[in-house]
Amino acid sequence: MGEPLNPDDIRYITVNGIRTRYLDTGSGTPIVLIHGGHFGIFVPMGIEVWSATVHPLARHGRVLAFDKLGQGWTDLPAADEKWTFDSVLEHATAFLEQLDLTDITLVGHSRGGLLATRLAMELPTRVRRLVVVSSASTAPAPPGESDMGFYDEVERTAPTDLGAEGVISHYHSAQAVAEGPLSPEYLRIAAEMMEGANHKAAVDAYTRTSAEHWIPSLGRAKRKVFDHLEGPGLDIPVLVVWGKDDRSAPVELGHQFFDLLARRTSDCSMYVINRAGHQVFRDRPEAFNNMVVGFVNT
Amino acid sequence: MGEPLNPDDIRYITVNGIRTRYLDTGSGTPIVLIHGGHFGIFVPMGIEVWSATVHPLARHGRVLAFDKLGQGWTDLPAADEKWTFDSVLEHATAFLEQLDLTDITLVGHSRGGLLATRLAMELPTRVRRLVVVSSASTAPAPPGESDMGFYDEVERTAPTDLGAEGVISHYHSAQAVAEGPLSPEYLRIAAEMMEGANHKAAVDAYTRTSAEHWIPSLGRAKRKVFDHLEGPGLDIPVLVVWGKDDRSAPVELGHQFFDLLARRTSDCSMYVINRAGHQVFRDRPEAFNNMVVGFVNT
Repeated sequence: MGEPLNPDDIRYITVNGIRTRYLDTGSGTPIVLIHGGHFGIFVPMGIEVWSATVHPLARHGRVLAFDKLGQGWTDLPAADEKWTFDSVLEHATAFLEQLDLTDITLVGHSRGGLLATRLAMELPTRVRRLVVVSSASTAPAPPGESDMGFYDEVERTAPTDLGAEGVISHYHSAQAVAEGPLSPEYLRIAAEMMEGANHKAAVDAYTRTSAEHWIPSLGRAKRKVFDHLEGPGLDIPVLVVWGKDDRSAPVELGHQFFDLLARRTSDCSMYVINRAGHQVFRDRPEAFNNMVVGFVNT
Repeated sequence: MGEPLNPDDIRYITVNGIRTRYLDTGSGTPIVLIHGGHFGIFVPMGIEVWSATVHPLARHGRVLAFDKLGQGWTDLPAADEKWTFDSVLEHATAFLEQLDLTDITLVGHSRGGLLATRLAMELPTRVRRLVVVSSASTAPAPPGESDMGFYDEVERTAPTDLGAEGVISHYHSAQAVAEGPLSPEYLRIAAEMMEGANHKAAVDAYTRTSAEHWIPSLGRAKRKVFDHLEGPGLDIPVLVVWGKDDRSAPVELGHQFFDLLARRTSDCSMYVINRAGHQVFRDRPEAFNNMVVGFVNT
């Protein structure tokens, strides 16, 4: 699972009134890592998912990662009607602008792949390359079909008697194929996040507002991406990475996404890694990191 | 199409009585490039197909390439019953042994992918990594079905009034999707090969012997590979590379090969490049070369 993140690399910045936790290390061309999940999902997520990614990439450039709006230790949206994908996009846009990053390689995992793709569309002068990882959110799907079935089942079958660490381990086992448990360090950090006020408030607010706000906004964001990919396409190099054994975002979805992408976006490629699940960058960090380094160097 | 090969890098060696042309440049871990086609096919092929590959890879290691038995400027098999895949394998094995190469990364294209895979099976102490590129020869196919349909059609539709260079350009256009014609340098070299005694004798001998020798031996070689992949699998890292727009070896064949490979061979991955045809390393050299360099470094 890689080394723990270095506390000295972790910073806070306030963007659009939202206190935002992020990581910044190394120097050179910025690579910005965007984690998956969304606010209010039952297991919290933040920059720590990149613990096997940050240090190897930082030998080749500046690596940044941030907790998305309402996740990790970044503030929650300010009002019910702000619990939308548009707010997540607005916050991420403001973050990149406030740090005045250019020549960015965006790496977005899962839901973060959809966000990264929308950012590449919105900020063409800042985003130079895009990596979409294991992102069912970005892949074509029958309209109106929920993409939460896998996670609903993971939540339903979570142990009820092992506390936050038990739930987090259960979630991880469902997503990843690597042998061995999560590190005690990661479990401690994720459990602290899960038991924190931020996460509990996010689950409450999401449960209350998602049908009205989040779910429709996610559908709109996906349609915008598909319209763009079927229309002008992307003018930047795009790399798609997928784990062959992904159970939550099966690789067939990846192939469908790549087929759609490849129609109009000339400079794209797809990399599928065997014996890797949804968290492909944790199951097979060396293959993943080498691929991203090679891509940044093109 | 890259820089022309440097004449100073080209050598001759006699292995098992076969005078063999090869290229050797750079220093460090050896990367051995194995071209496609087979002796007696209507358009000749040799180490020059790697002109966009050799110099970029040689910045990271020692790069070797050789003309396979009966192709390019390597001698033809000595007797009719030697016009088999087994002879090609025997010659390539002797070549690697005579140069005493170890820690080899083998890169095999098309028919050369089948040869590279058989070499990896036969020489486990020498071959450290395997790259299979656009290789219908290595992919599962209905038993008994000819894999020459695409090339039969290319040959049938070749211009009859434009000489060797016209036929070579026609063949290249059918295989590749890159814009622009072949370089005059490549055309001159390939036409010289096509008009040489070696090539004409190969076409005659192949036409006379292939039904009895080549075709059955190719079928046996494929079955050996499949049995091995379904049985123990390969113990080394394997990378599969394919052009998304390959017309002679459609990417669906690549997916089938990767599915078979991934069952037992833990450490494997597949890289598909958009806007690239059968000669993916010439259509998209930068993406191809970066991928191979990253793979060698794992």
